Amino acid sequence: MEISALQKARSSYQPKLPKGLRGNVDIIEGAPTESVGDQAEIKRLFPHTYGMPLVEFAPAKEVKEYAPINVGIILSGGQAPGGHNVICGLFDELKKQNPKSKLYGFLMGPSGLVDHKYKELTAEVIDKYRNTGGFDMIGSGRTKLETKEQFDSGLEIIRQLNLNAVIIIGGDDSNTNACMLAEYYASINAGVSVIGCPKTIDGDLKNDQIETSFGFDSACKTYSELIGNIQRDANSARKYWHFIKLMGRSASHIALECALQTQPNICIISEEVEANNMTLDDVVNQICEVVVKRSEEGLYYGTILIPEGLIEFVPAFKRLIAELSDLLSSDLAKTEAKGLKSDDLLAWILNHVSAENLPTLKSLPEEVAKQLALGRDPHGNVQVSLIETEKMLSEMCAKRLDEWKEQGKFKGKFAALHHFFGYEGRCATPSNFDCNYCYALGTSAAQLVANGKTGYMAIVKNTTAPADEWVAGGVPITKMMNLERRNGQMKPVIKKALVLLDGEPFKELVERRKDWAVNTRYVYPGPIQYFGPLEVCDQCTMTLALEHKK
Amino acid sequence: MEISALQKARSSYQPKLPKGLRGNVDIIEGAPTESVGDQAEIKRLFPHTYGMPLVEFAPAKEVKEYAPINVGIILSGGQAPGGHNVICGLFDELKKQNPKSKLYGFLMGPSGLVDHKYKELTAEVIDKYRNTGGFDMIGSGRTKLETKEQFDSGLEIIRQLNLNAVIIIGGDDSNTNACMLAEYYASINAGVSVIGCPKTIDGDLKNDQIETSFGFDSACKTYSELIGNIQRDANSARKYWHFIKLMGRSASHIALECALQTQPNICIISEEVEANNMTLDDVVNQICEVVVKRSEEGLYYGTILIPEGLIEFVPAFKRLIAELSDLLSSDLAKTEAKGLKSDDLLAWILNHVSAENLPTLKSLPEEVAKQLALGRDPHGNVQVSLIETEKMLSEMCAKRLDEWKEQGKFKGKFAALHHFFGYEGRCATPSNFDCNYCYALGTSAAQLVANGKTGYMAIVKNTTAPADEWVAGGVPITKMMNLERRNGQMKPVIKKALVLLDGEPFKELVERRKDWAVNTRYVYPGPIQYFGPLEVCDQCTMTLALEHKK
Repeated sequence: MEISALQKARSSYQPKLPKGLRGNVDIIEGAPTESVGDQAEIKRLFPHTYGMPLVEFAPAKEVKEYAPINVGIILSGGQAPGGHNVICGLFDELKKQNPKSKLYGFLMGPSGLVDHKYKELTAEVIDKYRNTGGFDMIGSGRTKLETKEQFDSGLEIIRQLNLNAVIIIGGDDSNTNACMLAEYYASINAGVSVIGCPKTIDGDLKNDQIETSFGFDSACKTYSELIGNIQRDANSARKYWHFIKLMGRSASHIALECALQTQPNICIISEEVEANNMTLDDVVNQICEVVVKRSEEGLYYGTILIPEGLIEFVPAFKRLIAELSDLLSSDLAKTEAKGLKSDDLLAWILNHVSAENLPTLKSLPEEVAKQLALGRDPHGNVQVSLIETEKMLSEMCAKRLDEWKEQGKFKGKFAALHHFFGYEGRCATPSNFDCNYCYALGTSAAQLVANGKTGYMAIVKNTTAPADEWVAGGVPITKMMNLERRNGQMKPVIKKALVLLDGEPFKELVERRKDWAVNTRYVYPGPIQYFGPLEVCDQCTMTLALEHKK
Repeated sequence: MEISALQKARSSYQPKLPKGLRGNVDIIEGAPTESVGDQAEIKRLFPHTYGMPLVEFAPAKEVKEYAPINVGIILSGGQAPGGHNVICGLFDELKKQNPKSKLYGFLMGPSGLVDHKYKELTAEVIDKYRNTGGFDMIGSGRTKLETKEQFDSGLEIIRQLNLNAVIIIGGDDSNTNACMLAEYYASINAGVSVIGCPKTIDGDLKNDQIETSFGFDSACKTYSELIGNIQRDANSARKYWHFIKLMGRSASHIALECALQTQPNICIISEEVEANNMTLDDVVNQICEVVVKRSEEGLYYGTILIPEGLIEFVPAFKRLIAELSDLLSSDLAKTEAKGLKSDDLLAWILNHVSAENLPTLKSLPEEVAKQLALGRDPHGNVQVSLIETEKMLSEMCAKRLDEWKEQGKFKGKFAALHHFFGYEGRCATPSNFDCNYCYALGTSAAQLVANGKTGYMAIVKNTTAPADEWVAGGVPITKMMNLERRNGQMKPVIKKALVLLDGEPFKELVERRKDWAVNTRYVYPGPIQYFGPLEVCDQCTMTLALEHKK
């Protein structure tokens, strides 16, 4: 395997561990917990994993003895920088506890457990992936673990490999399923722990226990590098408006963080659009007003950050998409619409959508309407990532500005360029923050297993402090659950963290965006650095810093 | 001006200067030169600036006295990382020669000279832009300096500011125009030097005197970071073919360099397509054969690098584009087709294109044909950057693979994602190489002026060695010229450097690409580093290293 000069240099980086995980480790148990919503129903669904205490790891005086154990690990869902370091942290801690312990990686995501595809992760394998991005060590996948058949099939290989625990690294859905698996194995006394780890570049898996999901830091820094570069270009050429769409299936955390890092002229926040009951037309007007203001200063250029999930947060669209999600998963669709291609499928949908939502569907450019029809991801969600929101918005803006020009409200020029950043950051080389954070999460997961915990997620807190002051522990997954509607049914899920409109990061944006809009206040973060001054290399995201500022 | 932590840390970086430019400087003059082609005609067109010697700067023993001078600087054309450092190097050397010397920046490109838009560049301005990307210090523009009126208008402000020299930082076209300006001012004894600097991320301004154009290094490293990230993603998710188009108006140097850095499954080189007289269908077949081979190994993913200018190098397309360029700049078009929009313009073109080229035009997807008609850049070139070649190719591949599936030649899956990287790298934070190289170019330009040279380009050679062993000097611009057809007329231009099919970089690709195609040999370069080990931070491009390997 040929590796780059940077990868060679980074392979020897030793992630910084919190004090509580470094030497001998004690577990400190807190009070019993409750779920964040629908307590009675969550308790009924998870009788064996509900109400468990928060736990925290602290330095212990006495040396502990650990019996050798075997652990399996699964990477679930979209890639996020740092995933390999979770595995490395887990591996190192298992071997430290007892060199006879073994780690197995299930291949290509949760399906590896169900289909018994795995490989042993030896030091030789592990050492190749220290501090690297991607999930290519064992691959990832989007299979949802949710049926008894899957759980039972998994148990076969668990028995065969004599596993004491399975660690699932994933986002909110994957961790919900980790908890279902933990509950099932507990209910049949299978004697195997299931532990989750909070992963997602989207940043929407966070709450009072989870400060941030891993990968958010590196992905946002990579996107911010690119946005900064584009802003330099915009500010040098002074002739284009750059419409920049940023990955993030639902919440706008990525767009918000990148805005705080780069200070673009406009950053749309989906949650605000929804709260203000804005239509797409309102969004277009808002953009065009800034274009006009800047043009009056002779500035015919700018940058606009657009969260990938925007369209789903426009209330009229949200109603349409909810109906489409139900419609496309209905029995009717399964028979009548099966195998229909683009045009025909759209025609079928137009014939079946309700009178309330038909106008919204018809108001869309045909290309966009077709994209909406193109099908959904394995979790049943409309694939908003297929909608070229950035082009749709810029086309609508161009049209609006032409109208305003005729009315004498706009006298400038308007030319747009489009960008979509997602895959460019999901597998970026992890920042020092993500390297350290993930390594600590993996170490913490090993400690949870060693202490016989199941249905927990590994957590690390106090992450705005230097890494040795971080506090590692575990949180019962049920604590973070409530009931939400999925594919037309109420299901127990981990509550997704959207951008809070009364949260500090959004308030910071609101305070500064009027200035950013008209004046040019671009900041150019540049590429992620690993070897320089601490203030360049070891800073956490601005979201995290603002959320935890004292 | 709010600046990022990295920018703060980088502002104190002192670029490394070649020995010959550090202390007292001697100029060493070589033998008279000749143009690379059409010597008689180039000599006739440039009587005052033809045949001058190559010059080189070397350490001098005695201290020299320099009278105070005033210099104007112009950034011309597309942005390239390092432009600010040319200005900083020039400024520092001017002030070192005589603190009373002054530097003026003409604003928004060559039009700043013509329209008398400028600002003085004081230490306060300069210090804000050291080691930064972009051209935002004074802006850039694409106005072509080529008429006597422009030259005379420029002379007015040159007289007014009492300028001894004008430095033009640009690509091949801009340096050609710099030479025309030098020639004109020499012919009227204006007493003002004109000096060029080799800039372009495209890498196509190079020859036996110019080892590389600045910006190529940083831009390729930035694109390679992103390609590497996408390859990690492809190798983790294992379900997409990524079609990645890379900026570069004509030559494929960027694609080739990025391929050498990242080892994708496929890299198309336009120059090879042309040399082998390939059709677009041949290119599609070549890609599809790799897709099939990989699918037989169970690998349903991959990466394909596509040079932006590809379509112009497909011989049948080239004929079509040459005709379109002539047709669209014809008098007929100026009357009949003026103001026609997309559909109507295409209809007009279809009615006027020759029988030979009509089939090629008709073979294009309509969207692409329209993009071809959409107009040209100020240099008269069809704007290939508007053609979404990456999507066109992947659509054609999907169609071909469907056919092969029916014929039983393909049994796998094929899903594609698309990327275009250009603006993401043009204004990247410059690498150490570009910081040093540009600073030396600026210093060298100041020395050329101090030595009364005009019609020269500043150069720096031996750039694969450590920076202090680099050799700075100047080359007469006429030496690099020949006659080429532009907008239907033969014009003197600097010979563009295409990828040489017998050059070391391309030979390296050819030697390795069969292995890369089927096996997965991805390399992940990661982000540009500034503070780490030399082998990570200070490496030149692989193109440069291979071209100059001993």
